[in-house]
Amino acid sequence: MNIAIIGVGLIGGSFALALRRNAASNAGDLRVIGIDRDAVALDEALKLGVIDEAATLAAIAACDAVLIAVPVRQFPHVITELSNHLNPETVVTDAGSTKQDVIAAARAALGNKIAQFVPGHPIAGREYTGVAASQSALFAEKNVVLTPIAENAAQSIERVRALWQACGARVVEMPAEAHDAVFAAVSHLPHLLAFALVDELAARPNAKTLFSFAASGFRDFTRIAGSNPEMWRDIALNNRDALLREINGYETQLTALKKALESNNGDALEAMMARAKHARDRWMAGELDGFRDEAT
Amino acid sequence: MNIAIIGVGLIGGSFALALRRNAASNAGDLRVIGIDRDAVALDEALKLGVIDEAATLAAIAACDAVLIAVPVRQFPHVITELSNHLNPETVVTDAGSTKQDVIAAARAALGNKIAQFVPGHPIAGREYTGVAASQSALFAEKNVVLTPIAENAAQSIERVRALWQACGARVVEMPAEAHDAVFAAVSHLPHLLAFALVDELAARPNAKTLFSFAASGFRDFTRIAGSNPEMWRDIALNNRDALLREINGYETQLTALKKALESNNGDALEAMMARAKHARDRWMAGELDGFRDEAT
Repeated sequence: MNIAIIGVGLIGGSFALALRRNAASNAGDLRVIGIDRDAVALDEALKLGVIDEAATLAAIAACDAVLIAVPVRQFPHVITELSNHLNPETVVTDAGSTKQDVIAAARAALGNKIAQFVPGHPIAGREYTGVAASQSALFAEKNVVLTPIAENAAQSIERVRALWQACGARVVEMPAEAHDAVFAAVSHLPHLLAFALVDELAARPNAKTLFSFAASGFRDFTRIAGSNPEMWRDIALNNRDALLREINGYETQLTALKKALESNNGDALEAMMARAKHARDRWMAGELDGFRDEAT
Repeated sequence: MNIAIIGVGLIGGSFALALRRNAASNAGDLRVIGIDRDAVALDEALKLGVIDEAATLAAIAACDAVLIAVPVRQFPHVITELSNHLNPETVVTDAGSTKQDVIAAARAALGNKIAQFVPGHPIAGREYTGVAASQSALFAEKNVVLTPIAENAAQSIERVRALWQACGARVVEMPAEAHDAVFAAVSHLPHLLAFALVDELAARPNAKTLFSFAASGFRDFTRIAGSNPEMWRDIALNNRDALLREINGYETQLTALKKALESNNGDALEAMMARAKHARDRWMAGELDGFRDEAT
């Protein structure tokens, strides 16, 4: 099996390492071709043994499957270039954190080849970036969300599902619109809130004093503010409408909280905190893993 | 040495365990007396060997030092009751997360004994509460901030400093007003933001779906939303003015962020994220530990 990884960073590299590990333990035959705008990243990926070969987009003509793992604002360019080299037998998927925008770009670029594109999003990451941060176990026990489109053949979806399962992931499906709304709430908003807080404190004249006394609560709250700015700029822009709805909802919550504080309403504050603690404790105990029971 | 711990929870219990460990390794003579409104907590502390004796407030008359480690809204009641039993040789400190309010309450309660009270705040904690969560190493290498008042004798400050150093902590001093402003920014605001986010998501009809797809970024961002609601209600109310200033500043930052999003200003978004990442990376690398260089 020949697999092309377009974008040899943390996600693309970890996908390659996970497939390699799986192929090794099953005596499978796997060749991984790396494609990247950054020649240094390709060199590093070769040296680390993440990829077998560095190539240009033309190489995908000989590949069974392609993973596009680039910041989502680069996706339209990549999918357009790729469409000229796409063999009818090849299945293409991606790792973008937003899905409606990616699907629209793929439709525009692929035309009547659109059925070959099965959109996906692995729910895994680290605050470190680049191929050197890749881990073969990055996707183990993690969710990968596929948001298939009407044109996808069941067999194409199955091939992408099998690749992610070979990486150790759990694969689930949901509509692209639901995906974008869910991740705006549980991922994109928290990232923005964390970036916003650190930036606001860092800009103050007494920033050093503030950071000197920041402790483990602050460290964990802001861990995601160490994420890749280019990637998160793209996600924010490409899921803008859902994200703006989330920010507005959060501002409404902050306004209620301020009102409770201003009126010394300890009962309201404690009730809010107790509800949050209760929900989080249940989530950590695995009691809220029930998305199949609800309309998404 | 006899030490009284008023409030035998995570902080009081960990202080007792740390002093015990230190006394054991120095063949010191230490007796820890626990005082708590909750008889069950006292029983547990006795069984766990955290305290030697459960007592009422009258017992402090025979103590060299007293640590008050109760939610800050209980502090005025405790310090008032305590003042009747206070021996002139006894030094009293506290572990409250807010300091101006605690000092005002101590002045009101202690009158001409106020010099015996040295206010303090250990910068350590866990999202677990109660004496069973106590750890003898909770304060190791952590900051303890003392906010001495004009009346404190140097010797009294030194005695409290020595106790925390025996727990393995680094002791620093700053004015109470600076303390409250700093911790509103780096601790109280993040806690409120985390509580607010989890509560907002938990209240939605599709909460289970949302939590099903929340991943490690969300887990760390919201860890502090698992904290004790009573304790954090008290902190929010007692540091209200500083906290409201922080919320207002954060809202201004969110408004700027929304404007950048609404106008598709990717440069502004990426610059904000890059500044935040840069500051956090420097902080994690230990490059921002410089509060002595600045006015606090």
